[in-house]
Amino acid sequence: MTLQSKPNSVTTGPIIGSRKIYSAPSGHADILVPFREVMLHPTAKEPPLQLYDTSGPYTELGVQIDLDAGLQQPRASWLAKRGFANAAGRAVTEADNGFVPVEKLVPHCPASHGIRVGAPGQHVTQYEFARAGIVTEEMIYVAHRENLGRAKAHAQASKFRADGEDFGAEIPEFVTPEFVRAEIAAGRAIIPANINHPELEPVIIGRNFLVKINANIGNSAVTSGAAEEVEKLVWAIRWGADTVMDLSTGRNIHNIRGWILRNAPVPIGTVPIYQALEKVGGEADKLDWEVFKDTLIEQAEQGVDYFTIHAGVRLAYIPLTASRVTGIVSRGGSIMAHWCLSHHRESFLYEHFGDICDIMRKYDVSFSLGDGLRPGSNADANDAAQFAELETLGELTKVAWEKGCQVMIEGPGHVPMHKIKANMDKQLKVCHEAPFYTLGPLTTDIAPGYDHITSAIGAAMIGWFGTAMLCYVTPKEHLGLPNREDVKAGVITYRLAAHAADLAKGHPSARLRDDAVSRARFEFRWEDQFNLSLDPDTARNFHDETLPKEAHKTAHFCSMCGPKFCSMKISHDIRDEAERVAGLESQKEAYKEAGSQIYIPAEAAE
Amino acid sequence: MTLQSKPNSVTTGPIIGSRKIYSAPSGHADILVPFREVMLHPTAKEPPLQLYDTSGPYTELGVQIDLDAGLQQPRASWLAKRGFANAAGRAVTEADNGFVPVEKLVPHCPASHGIRVGAPGQHVTQYEFARAGIVTEEMIYVAHRENLGRAKAHAQASKFRADGEDFGAEIPEFVTPEFVRAEIAAGRAIIPANINHPELEPVIIGRNFLVKINANIGNSAVTSGAAEEVEKLVWAIRWGADTVMDLSTGRNIHNIRGWILRNAPVPIGTVPIYQALEKVGGEADKLDWEVFKDTLIEQAEQGVDYFTIHAGVRLAYIPLTASRVTGIVSRGGSIMAHWCLSHHRESFLYEHFGDICDIMRKYDVSFSLGDGLRPGSNADANDAAQFAELETLGELTKVAWEKGCQVMIEGPGHVPMHKIKANMDKQLKVCHEAPFYTLGPLTTDIAPGYDHITSAIGAAMIGWFGTAMLCYVTPKEHLGLPNREDVKAGVITYRLAAHAADLAKGHPSARLRDDAVSRARFEFRWEDQFNLSLDPDTARNFHDETLPKEAHKTAHFCSMCGPKFCSMKISHDIRDEAERVAGLESQKEAYKEAGSQIYIPAEAAE
Repeated sequence: MTLQSKPNSVTTGPIIGSRKIYSAPSGHADILVPFREVMLHPTAKEPPLQLYDTSGPYTELGVQIDLDAGLQQPRASWLAKRGFANAAGRAVTEADNGFVPVEKLVPHCPASHGIRVGAPGQHVTQYEFARAGIVTEEMIYVAHRENLGRAKAHAQASKFRADGEDFGAEIPEFVTPEFVRAEIAAGRAIIPANINHPELEPVIIGRNFLVKINANIGNSAVTSGAAEEVEKLVWAIRWGADTVMDLSTGRNIHNIRGWILRNAPVPIGTVPIYQALEKVGGEADKLDWEVFKDTLIEQAEQGVDYFTIHAGVRLAYIPLTASRVTGIVSRGGSIMAHWCLSHHRESFLYEHFGDICDIMRKYDVSFSLGDGLRPGSNADANDAAQFAELETLGELTKVAWEKGCQVMIEGPGHVPMHKIKANMDKQLKVCHEAPFYTLGPLTTDIAPGYDHITSAIGAAMIGWFGTAMLCYVTPKEHLGLPNREDVKAGVITYRLAAHAADLAKGHPSARLRDDAVSRARFEFRWEDQFNLSLDPDTARNFHDETLPKEAHKTAHFCSMCGPKFCSMKISHDIRDEAERVAGLESQKEAYKEAGSQIYIPAEAAE
Repeated sequence: MTLQSKPNSVTTGPIIGSRKIYSAPSGHADILVPFREVMLHPTAKEPPLQLYDTSGPYTELGVQIDLDAGLQQPRASWLAKRGFANAAGRAVTEADNGFVPVEKLVPHCPASHGIRVGAPGQHVTQYEFARAGIVTEEMIYVAHRENLGRAKAHAQASKFRADGEDFGAEIPEFVTPEFVRAEIAAGRAIIPANINHPELEPVIIGRNFLVKINANIGNSAVTSGAAEEVEKLVWAIRWGADTVMDLSTGRNIHNIRGWILRNAPVPIGTVPIYQALEKVGGEADKLDWEVFKDTLIEQAEQGVDYFTIHAGVRLAYIPLTASRVTGIVSRGGSIMAHWCLSHHRESFLYEHFGDICDIMRKYDVSFSLGDGLRPGSNADANDAAQFAELETLGELTKVAWEKGCQVMIEGPGHVPMHKIKANMDKQLKVCHEAPFYTLGPLTTDIAPGYDHITSAIGAAMIGWFGTAMLCYVTPKEHLGLPNREDVKAGVITYRLAAHAADLAKGHPSARLRDDAVSRARFEFRWEDQFNLSLDPDTARNFHDETLPKEAHKTAHFCSMCGPKFCSMKISHDIRDEAERVAGLESQKEAYKEAGSQIYIPAEAAE
């Protein structure tokens, strides 16, 4: 067993300047929700700021991680009460690991999670519980998690109330477990939470909640190994990924997925068709329902929380792509298109969609209905193929709900700014408000190497318009495999885009962090500015490149303007001067009386 | 004379994969407009793509640059015909260079440009010519420059016509010199072109033209020297800066500015109050009209093309900032606020605005009316102080036009997405459609280290809404001084934001480059994809990190999916298969007749 094949060390310890805290919703001592608290400088006239935290136990101080044992299982006791049957589980085959030679086999993760399986008639999925009017522990958990800062924002509402334009979303001032339940029951939100993923810290994805982001990891036919993949998960959630998709396609994928799931506090998504294709030797026309079904069960038993299913790529839509500039760019979409064309038959995913629902329901695997015909260029945005598929996804959403499943819908891709809103509006309409989960979209095609940015523009906008989760894009998009720094750049970029969307939607407590950064900046609390930011290490390093001395971090100036020429400093002087000269309000009156209206009232200036 | 103090080498040579070309508008052999042509692989079934090019002679093949001699002077012959008086010029004083000790003095740039000065009654500014119905060489030049690709787009219009949402802009299918003249006469566009900057390659800034970007350079009290500053200019325009602002504040600024201007093919902007403040020892309350006026003349004679003038920071508005989270963050704004408060007098810039116009008109220095009260945080966006100043800028715009000057208006800053459009709408209304020139805006405050991205989101949006020029933000914003890589990151980021805006506005030829990249991508022309991109070096390096071999650049797959699993490849197979099986249109009919509607028509799917 080598370092290459078995993960045995990952990044741990607090993000600098922060400490991990846990908080229980009132009356639920057994539900511990993680947050991160940023400690501030003693001169700050405000308490520490608490932040939403996706990083799992890895960022606890002094934490000992044993990847063999897997993470603690916060959901185990909740799941135990639900009376699921224990299954022996499907036997692992050589095909599951891509027929890897025994000497190159990544070992099985020894951590156990049992294998639970839901029975007919039993409530299994969060959707089924919600429809039955039952509030689950997962719902209570996410309500507490989403409520962060809202009491504080509410208390400040006399001087500050969040404004925003929510385009018809209904964001509550406080999130109650009952609100969560109602949103899930309406299909407007999901909690991807496989009953075989007890390590999960639940997260909710929906238009009336904070905008979430997904990071992709995965080995590949060309490079990478197991140790790297688990560390990529830990690294991605450290910087803020709410969910992680494992897009592995090569050998060892079953066993690598086991290591990932047993050590993942976030929902894990996959695209099962990738593995199914491996099982038939990479030849798409050899795929069939049996091998796909086998793969669904295999991954569901392991605990995958959501599956991308490209059931909307129907035979009839494929000719609509023939005159595109970039054809079909979704891997899953192109596999299914190839299958349909070579057999000249309707997609087996479409034909077996009810069967797929039945399997996914038994484990509460959520649907991420894949956009296999998404545009791969601005030229192809919003075309007939894309929208035909979207309408089919809407039709399938209703089928999945009927079967008791949770559903979200995947979206583009490459879309110029003026065509973004039409995507959101159409998705809301034809998919009955099921949560939208988009890749970017990229707003121009001319900047390979910078597509985290071309897509962050589109992502922030579509998040504002109502998309519930944004799939990250790294600087390597279109060019190569992201390395560690690329993953971090992608995650931070998408965190800022999602936050920009939350601000614009008017999430009640979103601005607390912005204001805390701004006050730190204005008060020259440099360390606080760094520690409150999305990436304290980079902020600190950038500062220190120009002014490395420790003394400069308490200095009342910075390198941009130098000590004699600081606008912030002058602004402080102005404030002091204004206070000294005036008691401004009373002064205004005095000047008016003297016939000289030097100060104009704020209202008149607006 | 040392390398530190005298610039003697800058980056030259073509951008990889491109060659510089010059093209004359029909009937104007003396007007040579530069473009860049991207050469494509022999397998490409399309001609080379021509691009707008800001990089000046530096990117000519084999160019010999002599910084002492300065650039060639394309405008010299045009200016000679206009009969301007030659002035002896103001004597350079020790104060101009910040009282630098003689042993540290950067030498004067020996290149000569003469000193031209306009007379009363004479047409001097582009605005005056335009109002008089006269089309200048500068107008012909920019019309030809802006027309790039439009004939090609027009020819393709049967199968592709640019769509877009232009929010009331009036973007013509072709740009004529007369259209340029009319836009300038209406105040909707400017060509910043000091008559003492004959080296300039003219550029037009206006809502009905391509969105432009500005990069800031400048020494500082803390670091940097002359050689670095000229190279920063060359480096910024190499990657696409349309204009460059020299924000120097330290010693040697007069002489460094001379080196910059004599070697600048792009418009150079400055903030004269910075230098005026140096002249009075850095103490804002010692500023007065005389020292400011002296500085305007000094810089106008050198050839600065536009001045930021913070004349909208009126005494009455300052108290409106007292309760802000981040006060006044504009350096010029805080200097003027400090001056107003300490003297308790109206701003001398406001009181002498007519005099300022008279000076700037004589050299055709364009106004960039500064937003001294712009918000420094999301919390302060769109507040009373900001909008009070904006209304004053509108009032001053009319004064400047009366005096014959060209005007643009500066804008924020930090604005959450839902408040961006209100900025544009208000600016258009109260500033009578004078071009808007914004800094970002940053859409969240929580990502220092990534503010090129937080601001690119806002910049792309406000550019779409109608902003004519976007001032870049680098990753070092709020933290330190940008280095070479930061400047490049800022420029590329803003180029992609400006281009995303052009696409969304429906600029007739904007999509040509996107489509060329997309075709290269789809056809596995890797080198073409790199060379057509905004940053070929980074795209190529990113690709080579994963797949370094030369053979892989002609491979029909890439590292993301590996050789057996390429969606683009599958898509090609589909296209081939579709063509083989069908003649799709005829097939559709056949299937319909057979009673089985397997293919649905494109229209029905929309």
